[in-house]
Amino acid sequence: MDTTNAAAARAGTSPGEILALFRDVIDGLTKTDVVQHTGLSRTTVNQRLDGLLGAGLLVPAPRDARTRGRPAGRFVVNRSRGVLLVADLGATGLRTAVCDLAGEVRAEREAASDVTTGPEAGLAVVEGLFAELLAETGYTERDVLGVGVGVPGPVDFATGRVVSPPIMTGWDRYNIPGRLGPRYDCPVLVDKDVNAMAYGEQRLRYPDVDHLLMVKIGTGVGTGMIAGGRIHRGADGAAGDVGHIQVTVDDIKEPPVCRCGNTGCVEAYAGGWALVRDLREAGHDVRSVNDAVRLIRSGDLTAVRLARRAARILGVAIADAVNMFNPRVIAIGGQLAHTDEQLFAGIREVVYRRSLPLATRNLQIVRSALDPRAGVMGLTQLLVDGIYAPHRVQELIDRSAESGGR
Amino acid sequence: MDTTNAAAARAGTSPGEILALFRDVIDGLTKTDVVQHTGLSRTTVNQRLDGLLGAGLLVPAPRDARTRGRPAGRFVVNRSRGVLLVADLGATGLRTAVCDLAGEVRAEREAASDVTTGPEAGLAVVEGLFAELLAETGYTERDVLGVGVGVPGPVDFATGRVVSPPIMTGWDRYNIPGRLGPRYDCPVLVDKDVNAMAYGEQRLRYPDVDHLLMVKIGTGVGTGMIAGGRIHRGADGAAGDVGHIQVTVDDIKEPPVCRCGNTGCVEAYAGGWALVRDLREAGHDVRSVNDAVRLIRSGDLTAVRLARRAARILGVAIADAVNMFNPRVIAIGGQLAHTDEQLFAGIREVVYRRSLPLATRNLQIVRSALDPRAGVMGLTQLLVDGIYAPHRVQELIDRSAESGGR
Repeated sequence: MDTTNAAAARAGTSPGEILALFRDVIDGLTKTDVVQHTGLSRTTVNQRLDGLLGAGLLVPAPRDARTRGRPAGRFVVNRSRGVLLVADLGATGLRTAVCDLAGEVRAEREAASDVTTGPEAGLAVVEGLFAELLAETGYTERDVLGVGVGVPGPVDFATGRVVSPPIMTGWDRYNIPGRLGPRYDCPVLVDKDVNAMAYGEQRLRYPDVDHLLMVKIGTGVGTGMIAGGRIHRGADGAAGDVGHIQVTVDDIKEPPVCRCGNTGCVEAYAGGWALVRDLREAGHDVRSVNDAVRLIRSGDLTAVRLARRAARILGVAIADAVNMFNPRVIAIGGQLAHTDEQLFAGIREVVYRRSLPLATRNLQIVRSALDPRAGVMGLTQLLVDGIYAPHRVQELIDRSAESGGR
Repeated sequence: MDTTNAAAARAGTSPGEILALFRDVIDGLTKTDVVQHTGLSRTTVNQRLDGLLGAGLLVPAPRDARTRGRPAGRFVVNRSRGVLLVADLGATGLRTAVCDLAGEVRAEREAASDVTTGPEAGLAVVEGLFAELLAETGYTERDVLGVGVGVPGPVDFATGRVVSPPIMTGWDRYNIPGRLGPRYDCPVLVDKDVNAMAYGEQRLRYPDVDHLLMVKIGTGVGTGMIAGGRIHRGADGAAGDVGHIQVTVDDIKEPPVCRCGNTGCVEAYAGGWALVRDLREAGHDVRSVNDAVRLIRSGDLTAVRLARRAARILGVAIADAVNMFNPRVIAIGGQLAHTDEQLFAGIREVVYRRSLPLATRNLQIVRSALDPRAGVMGLTQLLVDGIYAPHRVQELIDRSAESGGR
């Protein structure tokens, strides 16, 4: 069997698949490179590259500083063909960014914003920041190829609607793409914040890891899962809800009431809001999760004791997740991940004790490398991968051909 | 944009992708059908079909009884091009079958076999049954295109080795494909029994469901997960281990010791072996899980009380799985699924109480429709889908061309 033919058969021949070859290299490719990689005829390769160049998806490679000349007939992905706008909405603040098609952040802005004021107010803040970011980077709304929004609640991914969010008052069934899509005339992607974080962490830091669990310990507790290299959202977008697994704690007679209405949930003991509640009850003047984090880091005995208990409870839930899901990497982010070793030691101890040895033998439990920008980075990667999906590439080529290559 | 072209671009053009078109229809397709479906030229379609016919993957459609003639130029998948051998190994018995390429069981055999006697003894039983099945159906070992083996323990799917199995004494790191592959000269697939069961249930009963959880409650407790239409095996083949999630039970001071060495695991309360233990302690003459099932079905008060407690504990673990994984369907199999409503009512009650409404709104908790043949059916589907994978189809065509089309 001719292995060259086999490789060609696998490489794929659509314009989108050819563009994918270019995304994998830094220095660009020549037509001859593409002919060799794909086994396609030179005529077909010319045709495919003309389409990609005409649609502005490829451009001639920039001059090479070493050889002082433009390399003959070498092409690279056009990372500046347009920009992406992303917004990562949290319970009390949001982060926005404008990114290029290589996934690089060109500019970003943060703002305080209470998600419970509802979608109209929250998205008005987002649109204002998007306008500032575009002005700052010299782009216009016509240059926007995709918008990504991360929210702290479940999302019906197909429609981009928020569904039954426990903490996003006023957002239930709200159509975010319906609001933002017409303005920017481009696809709008909405996902749960931890899903985007998990995707960013996997794509950018652990590209060889197929199974990754992202745990965000902020005001609440949530998880995002990468299963087989893809985000696992579940049948209703509700997957990853470890915060509402119920646990029993030996020294507590009355399990605390959770925000979801049940009692004894993981986040009712170990979420940021629960730590704030317990520290206040202990007489501390703590107003926010960040206050609680500072108190734990200062070494206050009550705060450290509560943090250790939170870590053990999180460990129980994460151990269950390990037994069920068997990830290679668990990345921990959110404000409470900044309480340093207090949290990590407690989680690791419980996970290694309660999970089967086979599932923990090669398991890494690490701090999120991208946090607090994991959400923004993940949304950007999701948008970029969407834009470069074969059917989208074909659409861009067709649209460019219709408009006479403008 | 021409939608016909778009459809053609999506349909794919490799021999394997063309064969997939034939798998989706019952009555077969003509060359003209294929040209219309794919947008390929008639020359290319002729070439592709010649390859598939030459390799014996397609055959002319059988005579149509209604029209009393052979439909001109109509072809169907050759389901009898070869056979598949499958063996589903349990703790105390095994089930073997010979199947055709449409996934239909042509003959099957069961045998008692204690998995703890080790791989040499167990696989000798399997090989003996395979020989009987081939003789019975008129095939030889040369006709075998694939062998599938399901085992009650974790498997490194890439190599087919059993890894750190808690109950399969002597099987750790055993190379099942190394033993069976040379004899039948074909690929040997090994998977955890519950993974195969989940795959069979999804492919044959819930083809439109992307996220399914299979729970097997037999001697132990295990789960198989279909995530995004694919088996989720996890990083080490250890995913789905709900049986060893630790639970706290209010009225039990000393949590029972589990087969895994930990205490308080789900299966130490609710697995078949734990019910046998508890019924014996209560003075019942119970020797097997089937004895325990009979006692529960007879309405014995102690047995029913223990079954209800088992159901509540299983419900806790399944509720955690629902929160984390958000499946659309939970299929329950294994011997204890035959205790009827005792078990299902208890599980449903706990799951609907402890999981978030979003995750349970459209959730179905059902008895496995294929059980006790779910493992055999699932292994067969896995093999068939493997044989018809595009690169395997190309291999079969190349091998047939090399041997002069014989």
